[in-house]
Amino acid sequence: MAARMKTSVKIAILGGGGRYWAPVVLRDLALCPDLTGEVRLHDLGIEGVRASARTGRALFRHPDSRTTFRIRTTTDLKPALAGADFVVIGISPGPASMFANDLEIPLRHGILHTVGDTTGPAGISRALRAIPIFTAYAEAIAEHCPRAWVVNYANPMTLCTAALYAAFPGIRAFGCCHEVAAAKDRLAKLVAADTGAKRPPREAIHLDVAGVNHFTFALGARHAGRDLMPLVDREVQKPDAFGDATDYARDNAARGAFWDHRGLVGLDLYRRFGALGAAGDRHLVEFVPWYLAGGEASLHRWGVVVTPASFRAGTWTPAPGVTPAPNPLDPGTGLPKRLRPSGEEGVAQICALAGIRDLVTNVNLPNWGQMPQLPAGAVVETNAAFRADRVDPSVAPALPPALAALVRRVTEVQALTLQAGRERDFGLALQAVLLDPLCVFAPDRAETMLREMLTANRALLPGWNL
Amino acid sequence: MAARMKTSVKIAILGGGGRYWAPVVLRDLALCPDLTGEVRLHDLGIEGVRASARTGRALFRHPDSRTTFRIRTTTDLKPALAGADFVVIGISPGPASMFANDLEIPLRHGILHTVGDTTGPAGISRALRAIPIFTAYAEAIAEHCPRAWVVNYANPMTLCTAALYAAFPGIRAFGCCHEVAAAKDRLAKLVAADTGAKRPPREAIHLDVAGVNHFTFALGARHAGRDLMPLVDREVQKPDAFGDATDYARDNAARGAFWDHRGLVGLDLYRRFGALGAAGDRHLVEFVPWYLAGGEASLHRWGVVVTPASFRAGTWTPAPGVTPAPNPLDPGTGLPKRLRPSGEEGVAQICALAGIRDLVTNVNLPNWGQMPQLPAGAVVETNAAFRADRVDPSVAPALPPALAALVRRVTEVQALTLQAGRERDFGLALQAVLLDPLCVFAPDRAETMLREMLTANRALLPGWNL
Amino acid sequence: MAARMKTSVKIAILGGGGRYWAPVVLRDLALCPDLTGEVRLHDLGIEGVRASARTGRALFRHPDSRTTFRIRTTTDLKPALAGADFVVIGISPGPASMFANDLEIPLRHGILHTVGDTTGPAGISRALRAIPIFTAYAEAIAEHCPRAWVVNYANPMTLCTAALYAAFPGIRAFGCCHEVAAAKDRLAKLVAADTGAKRPPREAIHLDVAGVNHFTFALGARHAGRDLMPLVDREVQKPDAFGDATDYARDNAARGAFWDHRGLVGLDLYRRFGALGAAGDRHLVEFVPWYLAGGEASLHRWGVVVTPASFRAGTWTPAPGVTPAPNPLDPGTGLPKRLRPSGEEGVAQICALAGIRDLVTNVNLPNWGQMPQLPAGAVVETNAAFRADRVDPSVAPALPPALAALVRRVTEVQALTLQAGRERDFGLALQAVLLDPLCVFAPDRAETMLREMLTANRALLPGWNL
Amino acid sequence: MAARMKTSVKIAILGGGGRYWAPVVLRDLALCPDLTGEVRLHDLGIEGVRASARTGRALFRHPDSRTTFRIRTTTDLKPALAGADFVVIGISPGPASMFANDLEIPLRHGILHTVGDTTGPAGISRALRAIPIFTAYAEAIAEHCPRAWVVNYANPMTLCTAALYAAFPGIRAFGCCHEVAAAKDRLAKLVAADTGAKRPPREAIHLDVAGVNHFTFALGARHAGRDLMPLVDREVQKPDAFGDATDYARDNAARGAFWDHRGLVGLDLYRRFGALGAAGDRHLVEFVPWYLAGGEASLHRWGVVVTPASFRAGTWTPAPGVTPAPNPLDPGTGLPKRLRPSGEEGVAQICALAGIRDLVTNVNLPNWGQMPQLPAGAVVETNAAFRADRVDPSVAPALPPALAALVRRVTEVQALTLQAGRERDFGLALQAVLLDPLCVFAPDRAETMLREMLTANRALLPGWNL
Repeated sequence: MAARMKTSVKIAILGGGGRYWAPVVLRDLALCPDLTGEVRLHDLGIEGVRASARTGRALFRHPDSRTTFRIRTTTDLKPALAGADFVVIGISPGPASMFANDLEIPLRHGILHTVGDTTGPAGISRALRAIPIFTAYAEAIAEHCPRAWVVNYANPMTLCTAALYAAFPGIRAFGCCHEVAAAKDRLAKLVAADTGAKRPPREAIHLDVAGVNHFTFALGARHAGRDLMPLVDREVQKPDAFGDATDYARDNAARGAFWDHRGLVGLDLYRRFGALGAAGDRHLVEFVPWYLAGGEASLHRWGVVVTPASFRAGTWTPAPGVTPAPNPLDPGTGLPKRLRPSGEEGVAQICALAGIRDLVTNVNLPNWGQMPQLPAGAVVETNAAFRADRVDPSVAPALPPALAALVRRVTEVQALTLQAGRERDFGLALQAVLLDPLCVFAPDRAETMLREMLTANRALLPGWNL
Repeated sequence: MAARMKTSVKIAILGGGGRYWAPVVLRDLALCPDLTGEVRLHDLGIEGVRASARTGRALFRHPDSRTTFRIRTTTDLKPALAGADFVVIGISPGPASMFANDLEIPLRHGILHTVGDTTGPAGISRALRAIPIFTAYAEAIAEHCPRAWVVNYANPMTLCTAALYAAFPGIRAFGCCHEVAAAKDRLAKLVAADTGAKRPPREAIHLDVAGVNHFTFALGARHAGRDLMPLVDREVQKPDAFGDATDYARDNAARGAFWDHRGLVGLDLYRRFGALGAAGDRHLVEFVPWYLAGGEASLHRWGVVVTPASFRAGTWTPAPGVTPAPNPLDPGTGLPKRLRPSGEEGVAQICALAGIRDLVTNVNLPNWGQMPQLPAGAVVETNAAFRADRVDPSVAPALPPALAALVRRVTEVQALTLQAGRERDFGLALQAVLLDPLCVFAPDRAETMLREMLTANRALLPGWNL
Repeated sequence: MAARMKTSVKIAILGGGGRYWAPVVLRDLALCPDLTGEVRLHDLGIEGVRASARTGRALFRHPDSRTTFRIRTTTDLKPALAGADFVVIGISPGPASMFANDLEIPLRHGILHTVGDTTGPAGISRALRAIPIFTAYAEAIAEHCPRAWVVNYANPMTLCTAALYAAFPGIRAFGCCHEVAAAKDRLAKLVAADTGAKRPPREAIHLDVAGVNHFTFALGARHAGRDLMPLVDREVQKPDAFGDATDYARDNAARGAFWDHRGLVGLDLYRRFGALGAAGDRHLVEFVPWYLAGGEASLHRWGVVVTPASFRAGTWTPAPGVTPAPNPLDPGTGLPKRLRPSGEEGVAQICALAGIRDLVTNVNLPNWGQMPQLPAGAVVETNAAFRADRVDPSVAPALPPALAALVRRVTEVQALTLQAGRERDFGLALQAVLLDPLCVFAPDRAETMLREMLTANRALLPGWNL
Repeated sequence: MAARMKTSVKIAILGGGGRYWAPVVLRDLALCPDLTGEVRLHDLGIEGVRASARTGRALFRHPDSRTTFRIRTTTDLKPALAGADFVVIGISPGPASMFANDLEIPLRHGILHTVGDTTGPAGISRALRAIPIFTAYAEAIAEHCPRAWVVNYANPMTLCTAALYAAFPGIRAFGCCHEVAAAKDRLAKLVAADTGAKRPPREAIHLDVAGVNHFTFALGARHAGRDLMPLVDREVQKPDAFGDATDYARDNAARGAFWDHRGLVGLDLYRRFGALGAAGDRHLVEFVPWYLAGGEASLHRWGVVVTPASFRAGTWTPAPGVTPAPNPLDPGTGLPKRLRPSGEEGVAQICALAGIRDLVTNVNLPNWGQMPQLPAGAVVETNAAFRADRVDPSVAPALPPALAALVRRVTEVQALTLQAGRERDFGLALQAVLLDPLCVFAPDRAETMLREMLTANRALLPGWNL
């Protein structure tokens, strides 16, 4: 077979020294036969990007690699962005110690987070750190590569993406998250159980998706033209469908399997509200007051466990820049024998935008009409069609009114957080915390908690009066 | 002075056998020199309306009375409504024992209500009983007096009014509530304290009002052309403005002064969100999760006390109809020497609609544009101009975004409740409960609680499958 | 009777050297017993303002005058505005010769205007001249008296007011126009004819008003509590209601009675669309394509005549500034024996805002919710309540859908015109002309016409590339 | 190669006796290797459907046919629809003589239509005939096959589709029109001219489409990842781009080439408003007043000619049912040697909905969010993704404001027409005519014209009071 024509592109990776996203993107690029060109790795500290560059070069030399890219490293945004066709953002807003603060301080006040990177007081705090960073990115993109497509992987996904649009309304950015894959996997299992056939691949499940990132709902599901919602109905009606999962959860907590769950919460939302929660239960529970308010014990009943702050602090080594090294694909420690795709879709989206092949998937974009139940401009997650130089969100099916209301509440908190972050306004940040569903105590206590949180992480809150 | 010309009108009073509203309306009519004509008292039981008729006749014979009306009594809607110019609704949806159930059952599950007639699980339960009654009223009005003006005094004000419009969209109804008077009184006191002059009357304080009934906000306040908000700012900044009011509250609770409060919550909402809570604190705390979630002890810190269910059950004698007799102005026990106006505005509104004199006041109406931040059609409370045969709501000033979000949450719960009540749908009622800010436990527990509540009060839930 | 307390205010009059509005305002002030203080007359040329000052002083010395004001004159905005409580704008955007150009050039291309100061290509051209002037005014007000209330009398009313808000969104401005008085007078006549009693004064007629300035509709009308719409229905049904009025019109044209009409167009709109046209017919016909497209002959059938450009040019003496002198109340030629109010409402509105007495009247304001059928922010005309330091528009009754559509078309043309004027963009101005209902020829011809118009008046289009 | 699996479907064709659409659908089905099953031909007259059945059987026996279907014929809706998976509607609302009336009567009043099947007084008249037919169809579909997908080919496309949704809001219907293909062909030519390569097929051109049927705009265009709008810009800037095309038009008129045009109007809209008119010029000119108001001579300057009423009347034989036979593929006169696809997309859409292969194309659907500039629910034309049992419209790029306003005007006229047709209300129909851009004379004349039109076609206006 003749060599395939490759499209040459320039890709900037911001957070290019990070231990998680940079290797993911480099690996997926290595496995993509359609692209070549240049990757610019950018981060605050040169050690991190150099480490990533070594990883990248090793990846492109790996026997499984199907392409190669020039790799450049820089700690300056201008050379990273000038003339870039694509910008991938994969930073972590602050070191793990700050993430631990986000979790521990609310816990002392009685507020439990299962994840803490998206919503709740912890998510708000994280967002406030991220907003100035993404504002600076957007301004630099406006200056150096205003027509570049910007793929954001960083959390809190919605607010990072919203911060880009707030700072540069003409930006062509979207947020990319594979969290709904959990729902696809669940449905694939149901298909296999029902047909007795092999479990279909995740990509074969089509979901009609609507919501905001990590609080996303499937309003329809099909496989090979078959409506899968009756399979979900059947699950709900099983006598033991919602049996107590405390033992399962305790076991997971004991062995550190913080990510495991049985999807009971997603299913509970389905039976109560009519659309299947299409994110991991550990995310879903953070968006409503019902599952976490009773503490860890009552949470376990749903088969969900808390990822403890100590785990965050212990496994993520803080580094002298925003995004710490080293990364798990460090060539020093050896690459794996076989390279496998990460499961993330950013590189596939880049391929579609480069005109190589169309793609329909879920994506986070400002609401241009795709969810008329939500405020115009709020960043929402729906399906979209990626084509040459264009992303067209699909109009999502309407959420049941109660779910639309719950999602709207999330966008309201996010709007307040965004404004607070942009204006460095403690009062607005406190309003965001008070309106968050996890906050059920009096405003003076919320103020104390928030002040402790922001003070603890003030190093990444430039210009705030704390 | 020559006798003043009186305008002759026909007024139906639904709930005309009730012990509270019927005497209020009759007394205010007796004190109004501009109107005469006919009053039709309607209720389920003939004893109640006959008692009210006796009261009414005694009132019109009272030396302070400035007019008289023919009084008719009926237990049939048709003769009450046929040809009526005005319909006043003053029922109580169910006997006091049901109100006690509304309070006690949630309390067993850990949910505290200070009032329980408006919002929270108790308010939802009460609304579900009221909706079929108001649906029937609206259908009868559509048939017998479609152009009549309908003044609703009953609670839950918003949902009773909304139920009228849902059943007969052409109805000319509004909800009348004097709760914002509390804020006017507070401001009058501030004026007096500031000027050293006599406290101005309530009517001399102009408020710019926006919100929903009992969760209303003053965005501006003026007296004699003077902006009063700086006086509010001064209050907030006093060092002891938000001092612990536990002793005060305990004392009130001990002596049964359940209605007393210091307005700390209204002021706390002002300092946190930028608009003054313009309803009694005991109402305000029920619309947000912050003050009640910690139980009665932490509530007392704000100077607010709970009206106990035992008080409801003990002081309100249940009767063999929807609205119980006897009433406090019973001619058997003697009328007071001097008749004083009730402080309610229904009769003044009737005068304005009858073309006697214009009136600007706050009123509950579907959102026709007066609050663009809220959904069209949701019943909201704003100022309005009453004129001959016309009510024109004023466009309210915009609420700060966080408050608009909080009020919108209330309207969302109300929309679900209305639909649940109209469709007799338990699942929707449960959604309403789950979305209510007072509900912070898991859906299965909420389901148990709600089923207990509706089952206890099922006698007034015809057609429900419980 | 003791002397009444007067409220002292500072009033700036922009266009204070003009021959029309400045004397109107000064006379109404002289007749107002409630106000005193200082008037600052501002205009481009000092001769004009000095002449107005002489007029003003003579007016305040007139036996009918009930107050006095200090008068200052200036050609500099800063001393006119600094510390002003009220700003009244009464300019004419350009000399009469430019107004004549606005009329004559379209006429050569076959487009007839009856008035030409509001809409149609002439109104667009006039607006383009006004927008930079009002932009400058708004910027100066933002700087020197941001809390002042701004009363605009100038035409095109809607776009002048909109230009103020576009340049300074926090401005407290409204447009004041007495054009709906024509409809009130008509209804007063109908009342008199019906009752045989004396014609009630204009103020006794209450209209429910909705629309945009000069294309306003009465959706309801009452007098002393009586619904007047049945009288209008009776008019429509008269056999000769819509008889040919050509002779009447020709006679008016011959004797220069350009303002006279029989209200046939307002009534025709009522029978076709369901709301009474509440502006003079000569204005109404310019907002739809139907009456003017057939030329003057077919217009006369409706009893309406064209005010010819020659009349504009001949009676308005152009002056060396934007607003020409002399004025009709020139003290040199002698003031009238009796001072009579102008019939304009600006001074009454100032009194209300100063806290003297409340007023409900129609006014032009950005759409904050008062007309939900129209775009938010578009300047619309509805009723509003004027109070101490506050104007609250009432939510207007809904227009019938077809009328709402016609009014929306006007706002669309206005939005394009405003943007064109602010950005000095010929292409946008051409879009406005093409979307105007009077433009029914091909875009290339419209371009030729517009270029001729703007070139002829380029002296007042600074910064345009023509 | 093994035989491909065929999906078996039941397809009802309403208007199955018609001479145009039924053969188109049958031929495209014959050429589709993926489907088989049953076709039910339904029409008012049995002769027509029998003729179509003969055609269909001949087509399925044709050597080029790749499948076969059972064919049933009926004049009763129930057997046609019961259990149908798909319903294709291809009727003509009334015989050609009525179409001729639609054109001739307005012409006598000075209103010229180039096509007359979509908009203008002729389109309104046609819609009024179609609305009761489509209402009946929708009611029958609701009863007999509520989950069927309904493909509408009939004109006026927008209002036929809207009438379906108005009568049965749960219907799954869309309008299918290939008119934008004209714009694709134009762009394909530009690509060929630019590259010197062969003209790419229509399907290879991707357009970003927004508007309403026949008044559709391309906001972007790409071929093989290349942005084509610069090619359009180059066209506009050619010195002779907008040269007088009168000779060309006259020649076309003389030889009966009524469909030919040079796309000058689409290009003129592009240069004036910023989006390329993406329908034939003969359609585009009917939606604005500019090109037709000057009569045929000034129209010819744009290279567009009028399809005369005589042509309509002469070539379309009226028949004793709604849709006349015979059809051009009559087996009696012989089928063509080679069967070629019609170029219409209905069968491809059916394949996608049947789960065979996804398709992205333009389609007419109620506005669920895809065009936030237009009213919710109005039928609009945008791109959409067709998948198994689902159509998801894409959010269209925003139209430039002036174009959005022009399209909104069309939807306003359509909303009035729909209501007039459903309520059989002459006054509303007259409002629709008056608001149509082609109507530039006074309301009394418009009334005369409309009455003549509806009276002439009253046989298909049951229940109207004419």
